Amino acid sequence: MTVAMSADPLLLTPGPLTTTETVKRAMLRDWGSRDPDFERLTASVLQELLLIANAGTDYAVVPLQGSGTYAVEAMITTLVPREGRILVLSNGAYGQRIITICERSGLKVIGYPVPETEVHDLAEVRRKLADDPSIHSVAVVHCETTSGLENPLDAIADVVIGAGRKLFVDSMSGFGALPVDAARLRFTALAASSNKCIQGVPGMAFVIARRDDLAQSRGRCPSLVLDLEAQHRQIEADGQWRYTPPTHVIAAFHQALQELREEGGPPARLRRYTGNRDLLIEGMARLGFSPMLDKAVQAPIIVSFAEPSEPWFSFQRFYDELKRRGFAIYAGKMKVGGTFRVGTIGAIDRGDIERFLTAAEQCVSLMRHLAK
Amino acid sequence: MTVAMSADPLLLTPGPLTTTETVKRAMLRDWGSRDPDFERLTASVLQELLLIANAGTDYAVVPLQGSGTYAVEAMITTLVPREGRILVLSNGAYGQRIITICERSGLKVIGYPVPETEVHDLAEVRRKLADDPSIHSVAVVHCETTSGLENPLDAIADVVIGAGRKLFVDSMSGFGALPVDAARLRFTALAASSNKCIQGVPGMAFVIARRDDLAQSRGRCPSLVLDLEAQHRQIEADGQWRYTPPTHVIAAFHQALQELREEGGPPARLRRYTGNRDLLIEGMARLGFSPMLDKAVQAPIIVSFAEPSEPWFSFQRFYDELKRRGFAIYAGKMKVGGTFRVGTIGAIDRGDIERFLTAAEQCVSLMRHLAK
Repeated sequence: MTVAMSADPLLLTPGPLTTTETVKRAMLRDWGSRDPDFERLTASVLQELLLIANAGTDYAVVPLQGSGTYAVEAMITTLVPREGRILVLSNGAYGQRIITICERSGLKVIGYPVPETEVHDLAEVRRKLADDPSIHSVAVVHCETTSGLENPLDAIADVVIGAGRKLFVDSMSGFGALPVDAARLRFTALAASSNKCIQGVPGMAFVIARRDDLAQSRGRCPSLVLDLEAQHRQIEADGQWRYTPPTHVIAAFHQALQELREEGGPPARLRRYTGNRDLLIEGMARLGFSPMLDKAVQAPIIVSFAEPSEPWFSFQRFYDELKRRGFAIYAGKMKVGGTFRVGTIGAIDRGDIERFLTAAEQCVSLMRHLAK
Repeated sequence: MTVAMSADPLLLTPGPLTTTETVKRAMLRDWGSRDPDFERLTASVLQELLLIANAGTDYAVVPLQGSGTYAVEAMITTLVPREGRILVLSNGAYGQRIITICERSGLKVIGYPVPETEVHDLAEVRRKLADDPSIHSVAVVHCETTSGLENPLDAIADVVIGAGRKLFVDSMSGFGALPVDAARLRFTALAASSNKCIQGVPGMAFVIARRDDLAQSRGRCPSLVLDLEAQHRQIEADGQWRYTPPTHVIAAFHQALQELREEGGPPARLRRYTGNRDLLIEGMARLGFSPMLDKAVQAPIIVSFAEPSEPWFSFQRFYDELKRRGFAIYAGKMKVGGTFRVGTIGAIDRGDIERFLTAAEQCVSLMRHLAK
């Protein structure tokens, strides 16, 4: 039963990520999940999320137990009508996952895949919507964690809303740092989770959705537990989660939201992450590692690097040696292969990135030396 | 953003419940969810759960993010074939919930409801199975948290397995204390969660399922995230959760399993809970509160009491006054109404129950006094 483990590494991963000590310490209390104190905690969290999204009274936040993908599936299967088609703009594994969710649940889906290093041709999106009136909705991933690419959400929203269609956004690794303005974007719903840019711990997700679309979705979701409309109705009625909530995770999330506000909100967090990213890319370039994406589409969330093709490089050894020095990086997920990822989000700053670069340099020297 | 709250009360609730300080402190580390350390943590948790269930190599444990109901829905919608009918033995809200899950997902379900204070007539179950060969499976709730009733799982398994049918068990509030012997019960699958008798924090659940039934369920689940077979295949392939796991919750669960073992396993825990229950019922009787169930069916998990019908009693005041004294009890959930519940599980012992009884006595005196 005893699990041997190394000392806590700093997580340079896209979430779960490194959280502050105070966020973790918020989990040192047991909450009664039906107690008024906990209802107030939930209400406070939901209110703060609405503020971050600049979402007015026509929006509500619906919380959900589980990982971010649970919220994406709940959003799609609750809010997209069976009769209409949904167009999914995909340029990575998470866009592809939305397509799989639609297929599984029997929704009529049209994928529009482009390579993982590219954004979609918006003139083509406009054409597709004009040509096919059966397309009811469009879904897009805000920041594709697969590669680290940021899709142009504002421009996509202009095209989709301009064409009179509904917009669904998976902003899992974007929300809390990348700008999300509901009043400007006019999305139907947006899904995100506790353990990305808001810097909470994993275990809960949420959907910010239009109240009128929620109201029209009664009984639609084929799953009981993923039925967002039913959860929304419950929260409105008595402030409660339908099923046992992850109380400790929510307490940590509440603390994380407070720390986000103290830092200066999403704009300040975006500045810190952008600084982390720029320093990382610059330092890694000096060590011979090139990012996979053009600067224009590289989000300040996670960076995919090409593995050097020389025989001295081994990802497994790089990972192990970095971990021995206190850093956990992330395997690649791009289709092209031969990539790895380094996250720039979480409770980390320039000093951490500098220390990481020093460690990375040591690992590169070691690997080169061993290969001689 | 600040939430006013009272000092931590002792939770006399059916989970989330009061956990040990050491279980909570296990959450003070951030884990990389794709790191080998975390894979080992997951493997260790799953292995320990198999041991507790006395489940041999023909069983596997499949973990799932979310609350217990997520695991029940995943179990039913992944493992019950579309073509067969499922008979649900219901004597409370959780049995009814299984029926709702079946209806939502389009499974052919037959409910066999009996009053919340009664167990099922097993001769009648035997007859139903003999009369209707289209019944493929039977589902039952081990301990009905609605009332606190323990269904006779051994006898039910004898009838169901004896009739050549598959047995599905919701042992949410039983597993970890009430005896569960897979080799004896020969269930197809059993669902439970982290935050009941194992005394972890909420946020993950699991299903102990037959490997051959899992293998035959590929592609059946209409939900992507609740597909137990796909999660099972992933864990077998590389030890990983398909979607971001609640890492801190799992670390706490790992610690809770270690503490369960140190206490002497489920038999020792059952003894402690039984002592808590007996002391509670005896003490509450002295204060004039009668349990709703016959002793023969009263589980040592949670006790439903009838509210006194005299005008001095108000549940809201009782709750508030008890909470002021450091105890959180639970509202009633029985259809008859006029009940409340007190849990006897969690990191609590006879001393806690004695202190609770003293507080309850003070509250009763106060309410009686105020009513004069």
